[in-house]
Amino acid sequence: MALTEQQQGELAEARAQRHETRRPTVPALEEMLFQPLEVLDHGFVRVVDYMGDDAAVVQAARVSYGRGTRAVSEDRGLIRYLLRHRHSTPFEMCELKLHVKLPIFVARQWIRHRMANVNEYSARYSVLDREFYIPSPEALAAQSSSNRQGRGDILQGEEAARVLDILRTDADRNYDHYVEMLNEDEAGQPVDPSRQGLARELARMNLTLNAYTQWYWKTDLHNLLNFLSLRADAHAQYEIRVYADAIMQAVEAWVPLCAEAFREYRLGAVTLSARMLEIVRAMLAGEAVSAETSGLSKREWRELMAVLGRA
Amino acid sequence: MALTEQQQGELAEARAQRHETRRPTVPALEEMLFQPLEVLDHGFVRVVDYMGDDAAVVQAARVSYGRGTRAVSEDRGLIRYLLRHRHSTPFEMCELKLHVKLPIFVARQWIRHRMANVNEYSARYSVLDREFYIPSPEALAAQSSSNRQGRGDILQGEEAARVLDILRTDADRNYDHYVEMLNEDEAGQPVDPSRQGLARELARMNLTLNAYTQWYWKTDLHNLLNFLSLRADAHAQYEIRVYADAIMQAVEAWVPLCAEAFREYRLGAVTLSARMLEIVRAMLAGEAVSAETSGLSKREWRELMAVLGRA
Amino acid sequence: MALTEQQQGELAEARAQRHETRRPTVPALEEMLFQPLEVLDHGFVRVVDYMGDDAAVVQAARVSYGRGTRAVSEDRGLIRYLLRHRHSTPFEMCELKLHVKLPIFVARQWIRHRMANVNEYSARYSVLDREFYIPSPEALAAQSSSNRQGRGDILQGEEAARVLDILRTDADRNYDHYVEMLNEDEAGQPVDPSRQGLARELARMNLTLNAYTQWYWKTDLHNLLNFLSLRADAHAQYEIRVYADAIMQAVEAWVPLCAEAFREYRLGAVTLSARMLEIVRAMLAGEAVSAETSGLSKREWRELMAVLGRA
Amino acid sequence: MALTEQQQGELAEARAQRHETRRPTVPALEEMLFQPLEVLDHGFVRVVDYMGDDAAVVQAARVSYGRGTRAVSEDRGLIRYLLRHRHSTPFEMCELKLHVKLPIFVARQWIRHRMANVNEYSARYSVLDREFYIPSPEALAAQSSSNRQGRGDILQGEEAARVLDILRTDADRNYDHYVEMLNEDEAGQPVDPSRQGLARELARMNLTLNAYTQWYWKTDLHNLLNFLSLRADAHAQYEIRVYADAIMQAVEAWVPLCAEAFREYRLGAVTLSARMLEIVRAMLAGEAVSAETSGLSKREWRELMAVLGRA
Repeated sequence: MALTEQQQGELAEARAQRHETRRPTVPALEEMLFQPLEVLDHGFVRVVDYMGDDAAVVQAARVSYGRGTRAVSEDRGLIRYLLRHRHSTPFEMCELKLHVKLPIFVARQWIRHRMANVNEYSARYSVLDREFYIPSPEALAAQSSSNRQGRGDILQGEEAARVLDILRTDADRNYDHYVEMLNEDEAGQPVDPSRQGLARELARMNLTLNAYTQWYWKTDLHNLLNFLSLRADAHAQYEIRVYADAIMQAVEAWVPLCAEAFREYRLGAVTLSARMLEIVRAMLAGEAVSAETSGLSKREWRELMAVLGRA
Repeated sequence: MALTEQQQGELAEARAQRHETRRPTVPALEEMLFQPLEVLDHGFVRVVDYMGDDAAVVQAARVSYGRGTRAVSEDRGLIRYLLRHRHSTPFEMCELKLHVKLPIFVARQWIRHRMANVNEYSARYSVLDREFYIPSPEALAAQSSSNRQGRGDILQGEEAARVLDILRTDADRNYDHYVEMLNEDEAGQPVDPSRQGLARELARMNLTLNAYTQWYWKTDLHNLLNFLSLRADAHAQYEIRVYADAIMQAVEAWVPLCAEAFREYRLGAVTLSARMLEIVRAMLAGEAVSAETSGLSKREWRELMAVLGRA
Repeated sequence: MALTEQQQGELAEARAQRHETRRPTVPALEEMLFQPLEVLDHGFVRVVDYMGDDAAVVQAARVSYGRGTRAVSEDRGLIRYLLRHRHSTPFEMCELKLHVKLPIFVARQWIRHRMANVNEYSARYSVLDREFYIPSPEALAAQSSSNRQGRGDILQGEEAARVLDILRTDADRNYDHYVEMLNEDEAGQPVDPSRQGLARELARMNLTLNAYTQWYWKTDLHNLLNFLSLRADAHAQYEIRVYADAIMQAVEAWVPLCAEAFREYRLGAVTLSARMLEIVRAMLAGEAVSAETSGLSKREWRELMAVLGRA
Repeated sequence: MALTEQQQGELAEARAQRHETRRPTVPALEEMLFQPLEVLDHGFVRVVDYMGDDAAVVQAARVSYGRGTRAVSEDRGLIRYLLRHRHSTPFEMCELKLHVKLPIFVARQWIRHRMANVNEYSARYSVLDREFYIPSPEALAAQSSSNRQGRGDILQGEEAARVLDILRTDADRNYDHYVEMLNEDEAGQPVDPSRQGLARELARMNLTLNAYTQWYWKTDLHNLLNFLSLRADAHAQYEIRVYADAIMQAVEAWVPLCAEAFREYRLGAVTLSARMLEIVRAMLAGEAVSAETSGLSKREWRELMAVLGRA
């Protein structure tokens, strides 16, 4: 991630500002504000604005006139209760706004979270930068043989080298051709005056899916936790999971009580189906249950054994 | 609207606080923060939190690294352009959180705006206050004879007196009975120890639709403007329009450039149908067009003449 | 629930129609189509239209060209997999449209499910019927002493009689006054020509919250299952739970494989927090765990013991 | 657009089916059902299912027990009224489900319409086909010199040839490399047994943005009309507009009264700002108004003159 001097200047200027407000303020998040958290080779997440804090969840749940906070321990208890019982509306009262730089194929997964507000950099209107995601060696995974949408071993040696070469060369060449077709310099003037230049909205189609785009993305804490529970999960593709991890850092700084409850009741929690619950009850009662007698499919049995630490 | 001493204390405490923040701050809205704007006889709207300002709309539209603002005149031009061309996503980057006290029948209209976050005071969990909306004499309107969902003349004399008497007496009696059925004092103890008290979630059904409820309501600026364009409109029921008017005050303080553009391109704008546009073109070309030759229905013709100031 | 002759005629006419279609059709649901399922004393749920079936979920998950179905057993496996792993989008491909008659206080809970389409009977435009919900004796519950938003014993004897008397009398009187204030007969003409009649949009505020309203309500299967998991749950208020139960009947007829998976993986499932899971693992390993050593709050310990059948 | 034999067989089978239903049925749309409408060089739109018809809009608006239809002329009047006054909820009662094949860069615009249900073909799970969008000669437009996100002249001669060559060659080569990196044959077995093959979720990033993807996309009529008003508009990018045009054909067959009203009150309508309206009134009153005296920006003045046919 390389910011231009101008971008660095804009960031520094924004970070230098101090205003007085009556609104709830979170010093730990203020400290992170505007600062990019680096993700992948050229990406970042940076918090651009926020609304609310742990106490705002409590305040809304109680529909109170003041801040609603009595004691931190009481707030903590209520927040844990709300999250455990899947009350969603109080968490909607906090809002986080991010500026994110990310590869297009990651953006295509991310955008499926519909309950969010998005402004994306427009490649109809502007020219994209020469930046592509090239996996680091330890992210260069083979197709999993057991999971159709998972990863297996890390590619090694010649195969790894060949893949990296392809990714780099194709992205670069396609970008060169993108620029050639556009035929415009930084001032928007034709490089070759004998040509007109292809419309930006068409030229962009020659770019590869690992080209970086960027957007402003804003959502409420309830939907953010949904995003994190899906994208910080081990089944999420690595390239979006690292963004979720970066956002999770911001959430820990911003709403520590909500983050703690989220780890306990969502990230670290498991759901047992009706039949799985019967099996656990039987096992606790000392009955022997096997894959064959469980009534579960093989896959579910494996999942249950893994959950119970008996895999 | 009468706040209890405790509520007033909570408000005063909240208003007295000052924090330092790097976030954009709007002094004119800070000044209004937490303070109730009185609406109807016992209702209010008060701004509890906000995110963003005029410049945040510009910043998101440009996906910029810093505040994105160059000059106020440039921001104004872009905001007007965005609103005129119905770009919605940059306006979604600002957020307003309100605490509202309102009659239940108004809440039932309001809640239809789905793109918002709501936490309502729970009458399953708590006991509602003895407060009902009783229209002021000038709001006591007869049914319109021409518009099935509109109002006509203001009721006068005996009829007005009789209506006010019914509304007051029925609301009061039903509330008395609500309290009687609950059979609980302020500490939640039985008033009459020989009785158990009806469940709160059932007792509430005896209340009238003019009883006041309250909620925290939060939405983004795009959806807020949609709300205002429908509810600050002359066709909206008076009892919700006054809430929209109060919110409009807050919007003027908060995002003056957006508010100005909204008045120009939404509140004060008109839409001409394809045929209406043909008629206006013909009239400008000096052709005579009448209701008969217009091809419009009578109703549309009247609407067009009103729009053109020829009614 | 009493339908007028005209309504019965409209229903019969709709049910008598037969059309030919290429769309997937579910005979068991066709059989129920348009027919009201009675709920509470005057309410109903009736299926007015539907889109899709079990195979449509499979078809969308596979983005297939044809019906996508290979064998019922394969469809069943995929549907169970999708529901178990909280895949939501394939279930959004089925849609159910209901006509519902329900008390206003139930409608106020129901409407909080935002991801749905609603057209409610307008009391600004029309006059509501004289119908109120009066609980049957076995639904007349006292306030729970342990759960602030729950029910306890059934009220008996004089207290029950008094409550029923209040509910009936107040609803009736308030409706009488509603009619008096409206001052209009069935043809919309003044009953008392010396009076104008209060605007409908105002007169309605004198009605009680147990008055019946009605609406068309449409949602997709994913959101419908969310609705059912919250409203068919034991913690839901009885008066909305009976509507959820009626809808569940329709779902069983419509998408039996989805309904079965929903019972297994949602309705009958439990979620264990991270700490609860550790406790279950310890118990299975033969360790003794008590409320005191569990690290859980008393409330969570009770919940866990109940889940494990050890309460 | 070339369907495989298997796909053609699935389509033919689906089209051959006939079921009996009590639901409203639209013969003109049944005729189109499942049949692909070709769009661009390899894309298509095909209607896979639908719910409702013109009368369903009326039925919901009236919350009626039967079909709600009295006379077509009455339905037409009500539908026009609803659309003219921006009533949205009755139109949400109809639903259309499409199967669409489209270039990824078009999919990225399309997905921004959030109020829709989507299941996209997964390139994490499956291998994409060798199909890319290559513009036809008349779609190969230069960048507009006046509109930063618009098109100008059609490229000619050598420049056109060079652009087409780049687009074809790069897409093809990148696809070759995609296949090479995957290293799997149609049965999922390694082509070169000495290599493992890159994970599908990574290999896809080498594809260009004109590669075709496909999805099931479903939305209600209200949101569909919003989509069409933005995407069938002259300012929309040509490559998405042709999809909107194809969908518009289906809408005309499905809900002809809604489609007609939509053309009159949305597609063909114009919105005049508050100031523009004053100008039109002044002009009708015979006053001379010029760009200078209008108080409009130059851009708005041009827009107004164009609207009034005086450009």
